[in-house]
Amino acid sequence: MGEAAPLVDVWRGEMVESRHRGHAVIADARGQVIAAWGDPAAVIYPRSSCKMLQALPLLESGAGAGLSSERLALACASHKGAAIHVSRVAAWLAELGMGDADLRCGPQVPDDAPERHRLRDAGEAPCQLHNNCSGKHAGFLTLTRHLRAGSEYVEIGHPVQVAVRAAFEEMTGEASPVWAIDGCSAPNFACTVAGLATAAARMGDPSGLGATRGAAARALVDAMRAHPLLVSGVGGACSELMAAMGGRVAVKTGAEAVFLAILPERGLGVALKIEDGATRGSECAITALLARLGAIDPAAPAAARRMTPILPNRRGVPAARIAPNPALWEGGAAI
Amino acid sequence: MGEAAPLVDVWRGEMVESRHRGHAVIADARGQVIAAWGDPAAVIYPRSSCKMLQALPLLESGAGAGLSSERLALACASHKGAAIHVSRVAAWLAELGMGDADLRCGPQVPDDAPERHRLRDAGEAPCQLHNNCSGKHAGFLTLTRHLRAGSEYVEIGHPVQVAVRAAFEEMTGEASPVWAIDGCSAPNFACTVAGLATAAARMGDPSGLGATRGAAARALVDAMRAHPLLVSGVGGACSELMAAMGGRVAVKTGAEAVFLAILPERGLGVALKIEDGATRGSECAITALLARLGAIDPAAPAAARRMTPILPNRRGVPAARIAPNPALWEGGAAI
Repeated sequence: MGEAAPLVDVWRGEMVESRHRGHAVIADARGQVIAAWGDPAAVIYPRSSCKMLQALPLLESGAGAGLSSERLALACASHKGAAIHVSRVAAWLAELGMGDADLRCGPQVPDDAPERHRLRDAGEAPCQLHNNCSGKHAGFLTLTRHLRAGSEYVEIGHPVQVAVRAAFEEMTGEASPVWAIDGCSAPNFACTVAGLATAAARMGDPSGLGATRGAAARALVDAMRAHPLLVSGVGGACSELMAAMGGRVAVKTGAEAVFLAILPERGLGVALKIEDGATRGSECAITALLARLGAIDPAAPAAARRMTPILPNRRGVPAARIAPNPALWEGGAAI
Repeated sequence: MGEAAPLVDVWRGEMVESRHRGHAVIADARGQVIAAWGDPAAVIYPRSSCKMLQALPLLESGAGAGLSSERLALACASHKGAAIHVSRVAAWLAELGMGDADLRCGPQVPDDAPERHRLRDAGEAPCQLHNNCSGKHAGFLTLTRHLRAGSEYVEIGHPVQVAVRAAFEEMTGEASPVWAIDGCSAPNFACTVAGLATAAARMGDPSGLGATRGAAARALVDAMRAHPLLVSGVGGACSELMAAMGGRVAVKTGAEAVFLAILPERGLGVALKIEDGATRGSECAITALLARLGAIDPAAPAAARRMTPILPNRRGVPAARIAPNPALWEGGAAI
């Protein structure tokens, strides 16, 4: 695998104190690499950045016919476990005649502070509905029911995961060389950074896909852009960046510093992985690439907060700052 | 600056998902590099890893005469703001006729969960005593009083910081090329990784230092090893690693993934910096180097938890694990 390139610098005073390296690709729906940093052929786990790919079989099968765009957004979400998320996933499961016990994602302390404090004050334990992936799993359960398949829908041989793998490999254009168990217990299929960027481009420019897949891709990308708060939550990077771009671009983060962007108007997809897994690196880098593509105003608060944040110390002194490495502006092919 | 070397791998399934690169040096008190990874000449901010160096003037000046070893340990600490820390620093300041308002470190939400919950339940804001550096600052204030100097003891030209810089440069054997403001507002002087490792070796083998500095170094290193819980707190890496080594070795972490170890019995010092600033990387790497040096049993729970942790997912499945890169075992000179 080729070397990761410097993508993000953390400055303290006049010196770079820490640095995040990684791989990033801008591609089109034909799989052509428009610009790249590091190694486009680097193999990564996309983690939650590919939830919209994992949701394709839900719609293509017909299982998701009639699902609201809110629910489609939740199927693509890594949500904060706030009341707005938990209540909607609970209602979705209830309509299936199912509940928390049917999920296989495991419980998670919610990122959402009000809900976390409510649980603590009430002496309640977090449940599986609080898991950031519970919307994806509600989608898996909907497809499971449609297929009349068994209850263990996260097993690698389960019809749901067989369908997910097929869709993932077709969209990335690659046979996935390896898979592993994700934080939510679902299989996560590896691909190259270029393959992930290509899949992102195809989600936004489905002209080369069949009619069924094309409609599914459009519905999912539209749902993400229409409901940014359901995709993450108050203060979340995906929510704030999508809102700042006025719903023109869909973005999705993944654990261990993966980030993906879908630009339907440009017919482009972006995928990046920070080698060390740091979220501050992936958020800075994706924002910088969106700014480079003219998709976001780098001076917008939601962008500046991630691309060029000032890090005050405990007396409020601006002691450190994060900035994209100049290579993110100067490197890569012309676009 | 030379390239950072792979030091720590994060595995998921059969593939390395993320990787931490960095610079690490094992040196002796003469400044000889015994083993190195990455670039020994890499310039870093040592951050809190060098608090024992910053405390040397407190003792060398005579200002700290009569201070208990508990207070010396607190002067070297990045503590969790637990009751055991806050109460002792408060008592120390009270004996000086001073209090929270004399500190210049700024308030910090304590890492210690019981104290954090107590504050929330009582509706109290954290104060400067909770700052992980409040013990170091109590030492600065003790020296300030002794020198009859002004109240703004974190300013770069203040006699306390002038003395700290001199001690730091003498111990590292380098003129510090740049400084910056630390999280606690004190100046932090940069040095090379090799210089920091040399300073660590000299703290543990002060035979080449003068009598006054040698006594100060011994007192500080002995205090750290005698009171591991005061140096960090329950569950903290420094506390647990020092306890696991039976008080034979002093270790100290610093922000942005610096770690330092002082091995008096071997006359060696270790310093490392993970390039990306990730604590999971620095804790794994320092533990691996201590194991390589025979200072810690890698099977001891405190060591295994940091060197080879298994990362269960939200259903308790062991989905990922961290491990030292093989280069940490195979690379470097023979020792």
